[in-house]
Amino acid sequence: MGPEIEEALVKIAIEPVVDRHLSEAVTGAGSEVTGLDDAEALVWIGGPDGFPQLGDAVRWVALSTAGIERFVDAGVLDGRRLWTNASGFYAAGVAEHALALLLAGLRQINTAVRDGWAKERIDPAVRTLRGATVAIIGAGGIGRELTPRLAACGASVIAVNRSGRAVEGAELMLPADRMDEVWERTDHVVLAAPDTPDTRHLLNDETLGRLHPHSWVVNIARGPLIDQAALHRALSEGVIAGAALDVTDPEPPADDDPLWSLPNVIITPHVANPASGLTREMAPFLAENIRRFEAGQELLAVVEPDAGY
Amino acid sequence: MGPEIEEALVKIAIEPVVDRHLSEAVTGAGSEVTGLDDAEALVWIGGPDGFPQLGDAVRWVALSTAGIERFVDAGVLDGRRLWTNASGFYAAGVAEHALALLLAGLRQINTAVRDGWAKERIDPAVRTLRGATVAIIGAGGIGRELTPRLAACGASVIAVNRSGRAVEGAELMLPADRMDEVWERTDHVVLAAPDTPDTRHLLNDETLGRLHPHSWVVNIARGPLIDQAALHRALSEGVIAGAALDVTDPEPPADDDPLWSLPNVIITPHVANPASGLTREMAPFLAENIRRFEAGQELLAVVEPDAGY
Repeated sequence: MGPEIEEALVKIAIEPVVDRHLSEAVTGAGSEVTGLDDAEALVWIGGPDGFPQLGDAVRWVALSTAGIERFVDAGVLDGRRLWTNASGFYAAGVAEHALALLLAGLRQINTAVRDGWAKERIDPAVRTLRGATVAIIGAGGIGRELTPRLAACGASVIAVNRSGRAVEGAELMLPADRMDEVWERTDHVVLAAPDTPDTRHLLNDETLGRLHPHSWVVNIARGPLIDQAALHRALSEGVIAGAALDVTDPEPPADDDPLWSLPNVIITPHVANPASGLTREMAPFLAENIRRFEAGQELLAVVEPDAGY
Repeated sequence: MGPEIEEALVKIAIEPVVDRHLSEAVTGAGSEVTGLDDAEALVWIGGPDGFPQLGDAVRWVALSTAGIERFVDAGVLDGRRLWTNASGFYAAGVAEHALALLLAGLRQINTAVRDGWAKERIDPAVRTLRGATVAIIGAGGIGRELTPRLAACGASVIAVNRSGRAVEGAELMLPADRMDEVWERTDHVVLAAPDTPDTRHLLNDETLGRLHPHSWVVNIARGPLIDQAALHRALSEGVIAGAALDVTDPEPPADDDPLWSLPNVIITPHVANPASGLTREMAPFLAENIRRFEAGQELLAVVEPDAGY
């Protein structure tokens, strides 16, 4: 091994525990896994609790979550080095989960799992994505991954976002201030927006009432986007056909939450981006960022600590 | 309305009951719905029981099912007119159901429906289609529809068929006599083959044993393609991860069939092509065939009564 190659190595610590997928990404990108004392970069795959004091030798910290509100609140981020999060790294997996939830509802898989061979009820309730319109509310990275999956199933996509950034393959783009036009013209709704004061209870008695009796609502974003009491009313009165939720408010729902007893609800336990698969998903993005770091190029998913997100 | 247009009308009977989707297809194609006595063509949306005696004025019979073994067995088909079936008309819907079943298994929706917020068990069990290989056994019309849906989810397809007819988008085509090479190299299996002596118990102790502990098996074809006792062994011993079945052997399974009690089985009641949606699905194909019939062109899905299928 020549000295040029040895000099190209970046020393990277993986904390609080070393992970196989990420250490393979580090060595595969030509860098070296070291302890924190020797590190020029830190890959941190925990939450803010226990985050270490860092010396100035650490020039880059790679966080493993997409949302970093808790790190900001805990005062972990500083302006003395580069910080990256995992924004966009898990979008494809979350989009797949959204598709799985919507198809499970349309094809009545929940009813079949619950009730067995109930053909006389299930057959007339089966619906198809072909020819249907699906509105993606908050169409960013997840929406860009979900749109081609829906299109391959023959559905049309209405993409609503605040940025106005185009979503390839969407039939219609709408800015967030025209969200009002969505409800009547879509068959189904997928919520992929962040939880902000503007999006809180986006689905409520009024907006749910403008959907259709055949409509399914999918939430892979954050529970508070839906007024859950209003959702329960809409589901139990047949205002919409069903809801498939990977997130709820609160999380998990209380044992006696009436949503549990409705036949037209599917709840998965916030696993669209499963914690157990997180480092496997992150690995190729980390490898890419190490190559960029070595080459002095701009990294993916750089966080602006001053912006507070 | 000019006389040319009136002459272009074909008189079509829809029996044993007139259906809205199909009568709209008839009139939309410029033809006319009549009683059987006046008809030049018959659209028959029942089984062989009650099939009427036909005069020679009826030059075309459109059956609404893809499989017509029961019509052949009942001696309904004759060589005195043109017969069509619905071969390929329902492929897209069945492919969607296969995708829904596979995704439901990979994303653990069955476990969530059954067990609620069991995050500690569900999170580590969630898998993804991205980067996975899916073998479609019997890749005809359904396989051609399923392949782009799987590809949009980031999966690679191995297409196995007897005809050797290429499946666009498949990574690898294999003729049926090389099926042996499939099991080790695929992650998941979708069965879409007809039920013949060659395909009976295609999945058995030996072939299931060559799949992987993370493999899901989907059957949207015919129950006898799987040795169900062998499947139960493979599922209960962890030889494969799960099975999602729209068809079983027999159908429905007996109430005390041990498959019902396995947590890693999804059974839908033979609804991949729901009876209730059949005429809606058939309508555009019927309209196309009426246009072809009027124009004297070759019809879609012509049956060769002498070939016995």
